Amino acid sequence: MANKDAILTHLDAAGSANMVDVSEKSVTHRIAVARGTVTMRTETLDLIRSGNAKKGDVIGTARIAGILAAKKTHELIPLCHPLMLSKVSIDIDTDDDLPGLIVTATTKVSGQTGVEMEALTACSLACLTIYDMAKAVDRGMVIGDIRLVEKSGGKSGHWTLDKDGSLGGT
Amino acid sequence: MANKDAILTHLDAAGSANMVDVSEKSVTHRIAVARGTVTMRTETLDLIRSGNAKKGDVIGTARIAGILAAKKTHELIPLCHPLMLSKVSIDIDTDDDLPGLIVTATTKVSGQTGVEMEALTACSLACLTIYDMAKAVDRGMVIGDIRLVEKSGGKSGHWTLDKDGSLGGT
Amino acid sequence: MANKDAILTHLDAAGSANMVDVSEKSVTHRIAVARGTVTMRTETLDLIRSGNAKKGDVIGTARIAGILAAKKTHELIPLCHPLMLSKVSIDIDTDDDLPGLIVTATTKVSGQTGVEMEALTACSLACLTIYDMAKAVDRGMVIGDIRLVEKSGGKSGHWTLDKDGSLGGT
Amino acid sequence: MANKDAILTHLDAAGSANMVDVSEKSVTHRIAVARGTVTMRTETLDLIRSGNAKKGDVIGTARIAGILAAKKTHELIPLCHPLMLSKVSIDIDTDDDLPGLIVTATTKVSGQTGVEMEALTACSLACLTIYDMAKAVDRGMVIGDIRLVEKSGGKSGHWTLDKDGSLGGT
Amino acid sequence: MANKDAILTHLDAAGSANMVDVSEKSVTHRIAVARGTVTMRTETLDLIRSGNAKKGDVIGTARIAGILAAKKTHELIPLCHPLMLSKVSIDIDTDDDLPGLIVTATTKVSGQTGVEMEALTACSLACLTIYDMAKAVDRGMVIGDIRLVEKSGGKSGHWTLDKDGSLGGT
Amino acid sequence: MANKDAILTHLDAAGSANMVDVSEKSVTHRIAVARGTVTMRTETLDLIRSGNAKKGDVIGTARIAGILAAKKTHELIPLCHPLMLSKVSIDIDTDDDLPGLIVTATTKVSGQTGVEMEALTACSLACLTIYDMAKAVDRGMVIGDIRLVEKSGGKSGHWTLDKDGSLGGT
Repeated sequence: MANKDAILTHLDAAGSANMVDVSEKSVTHRIAVARGTVTMRTETLDLIRSGNAKKGDVIGTARIAGILAAKKTHELIPLCHPLMLSKVSIDIDTDDDLPGLIVTATTKVSGQTGVEMEALTACSLACLTIYDMAKAVDRGMVIGDIRLVEKSGGKSGHWTLDKDGSLGGT
Repeated sequence: MANKDAILTHLDAAGSANMVDVSEKSVTHRIAVARGTVTMRTETLDLIRSGNAKKGDVIGTARIAGILAAKKTHELIPLCHPLMLSKVSIDIDTDDDLPGLIVTATTKVSGQTGVEMEALTACSLACLTIYDMAKAVDRGMVIGDIRLVEKSGGKSGHWTLDKDGSLGGT
Repeated sequence: MANKDAILTHLDAAGSANMVDVSEKSVTHRIAVARGTVTMRTETLDLIRSGNAKKGDVIGTARIAGILAAKKTHELIPLCHPLMLSKVSIDIDTDDDLPGLIVTATTKVSGQTGVEMEALTACSLACLTIYDMAKAVDRGMVIGDIRLVEKSGGKSGHWTLDKDGSLGGT
Repeated sequence: MANKDAILTHLDAAGSANMVDVSEKSVTHRIAVARGTVTMRTETLDLIRSGNAKKGDVIGTARIAGILAAKKTHELIPLCHPLMLSKVSIDIDTDDDLPGLIVTATTKVSGQTGVEMEALTACSLACLTIYDMAKAVDRGMVIGDIRLVEKSGGKSGHWTLDKDGSLGGT
Repeated sequence: MANKDAILTHLDAAGSANMVDVSEKSVTHRIAVARGTVTMRTETLDLIRSGNAKKGDVIGTARIAGILAAKKTHELIPLCHPLMLSKVSIDIDTDDDLPGLIVTATTKVSGQTGVEMEALTACSLACLTIYDMAKAVDRGMVIGDIRLVEKSGGKSGHWTLDKDGSLGGT
Repeated sequence: MANKDAILTHLDAAGSANMVDVSEKSVTHRIAVARGTVTMRTETLDLIRSGNAKKGDVIGTARIAGILAAKKTHELIPLCHPLMLSKVSIDIDTDDDLPGLIVTATTKVSGQTGVEMEALTACSLACLTIYDMAKAVDRGMVIGDIRLVEKSGGKSGHWTLDKDGSLGGT
């Protein structure tokens, strides 16, 4: 994807950071899906699972943190445009092989600019919230593999991680 | 570290999420260091490096985003306490082997509760900002390996990732 | 209004909280009016009234707090969508029978989702601000009767509390 | 409690709003408890209860919204001081007689100024979040009876609503 | 420009502050440019310039602060409408005659209300950030001459400071 | 004040922006006073004055905006530390000679770092709010002369603009 003519769009001719002008871009329906993981000890995962069986609060709290974070993206990422998100959803699944949790964030907008940063930010904050709630029992957790897995709308059409494989084997 | 008596401190007896009472904890100097990476194509790294050579704006912008995020941690992570941070610093290094950038966030407070979430949040948002500024040329970047690497102050004393090795080989 | 098929729209099939997808809803002009009261001692009301006669600051401050809160609704209520409010107004009237103050908040938007939460949030924060400014002289104040009184736009058309009477005699 | 010499502490001699100087007040442990209700149809309460039985999300989401709101109090109520809250907890109980939900918010700080506004704000936002999640099935809900029920610390000592009865029969 | 029939649009018939209803205004492309200065000692300017030569951080940090502030305008200025900014850019030039820095902020939107407050707020916060970063060496800096220099879109068409000269010689 | 050894404290040895470590600074009572002006046409000033005579809303709204801004300073100025402000007050006076308004902001804290940025930010936002509320009748207003006029506490003791005269005759 990166090629000889590639430029970092947020840097102007002089190399200064700026917020890209999107006023001439067309308004389309745009969707993005991001995914990430929180790797932890098996015992920690079991605790979250059993806590969740009772009241669902670790996963429920992380989901709310992710949704709220999506709406704050333009305040957190300096050069992101404000967006009128029409949907945010967060799915959190347990995975015994990691062991840990897999967080998937989906964002949707009808607008002039993509929603991948909103999905990635929602995913990151949901992971951080899981970390916070479990850190007293497991200081070695790792948040990782946060990446875009799907994107549609805008001039680049429909893209999925599987079809692209842009990072080789990953 | 996790053991039979381990409990998720943010869940009360009924399993409901709550903000832990820290009023009886002692006020000590506390420091936390967190680290994470943004893996990208070599061409993308070169673009950031050359952009940075000119004006420093990708790395400079990510650093500011990380510092601001540290100060917003208690707004983003539902059960975190507000803290009077006495220091936040963000170091961003290029790494040809990844290839990509390594972000290290250090936070410091004199207070009743640790600052690891502040360091992890600062690190995450600096990574997301780098991602945002380079995503137009590289849709396959991955944010990863976000973890605590050092922590001091509080009742658990001085801890470093190397000495603990809590996730096995990591 | 609640019937056998009623569902809580913010819970998905699995019962998890989510932000409803409004991308297919039509853009219409929407207005909502919410009302609430702060009940207090007669002496407290007199103090506010006389303070107000001089500089208008209790009521003026509460009005500004309400307007600002309307614009923050989507940050405060986790599953609310961000909205481009085209108008917010707050009216605050004294009432000797309560005795106390009656706060009425009106919000307006041209969008895909209703503005009742914005009106209710504005009303609540204006009430809380009144409470804050008078609490040194009256610790027994009560904020109450916060409800929607009118709503128009969207598929449910024009609704008023009087015509509905959905809570019986209230 | 209000008497002839009572003054609205947030208005200065000229009647202008200001933020009271608390720099000479002593640092003490302070606790406040506030309570409020959301009155709804019995069918609505049943839906929330059954939703909660599955995943706990209405009540869990409202609890998180209340905790986050407590930490934002000084941004929402213009003349409130920033506070280093050491604890926030929200309890939400169902009540068939209302019928509806009773929200109780407890806040704690070691500081120079009371935490009642934090408790009241947390309570109000938890109520508004419940309203938001149920409004699609019940437009006639009412948020009410938001009041302080207990307060300790500071020069006025320990106060409870029951012992004071400051609003007569209420 | 001010004439006999002029009214302060944010005050209603009773003189109360309100947020103007813009729902009937037409959606047009709107641009605003604001400018301001930070006057300082020559030595201070030299330090900023040399710091900037190395890493660009004073000017780079101020630029980011200005961009973020533009997006927060409606939270900071009570009666401003939320806006979907399509572009924000900040230019910062050194000026030996002041001596000091000149900050120019440009904002763009397609909406129902102008973007001059966004430009002025961005400009002000960029100036304040410069001040903050240099205040340890120069306590006598002055932020000044913050004004609108250009505005287009909306019913008043294209306006520039030069053509208007509305404050006489300034 | 600036001398050969002067350094910009927010830049580290490599010239990167960072948040200064204040953990070793002593906790003292600190006060700062900042001042600024909004210059306008005489007719505009008269309108504000008469509006104010009725309900006080232009000046009252600007005062609230300034107080709220002081509490947000560390979110707006990237390298400012969070502070537990113990007092913020804003005075706004009319001045026929400008003609316009003079805004004076006073901030107070017991802490490890000064409060001048809080005073300057409060002053700037109060000025911007006045501008916003009058801009419909006067597009040529200028915000200016924002500067520190007094500062006490911390190692530099008591400083006033008059005694320093650091910018020559100003």
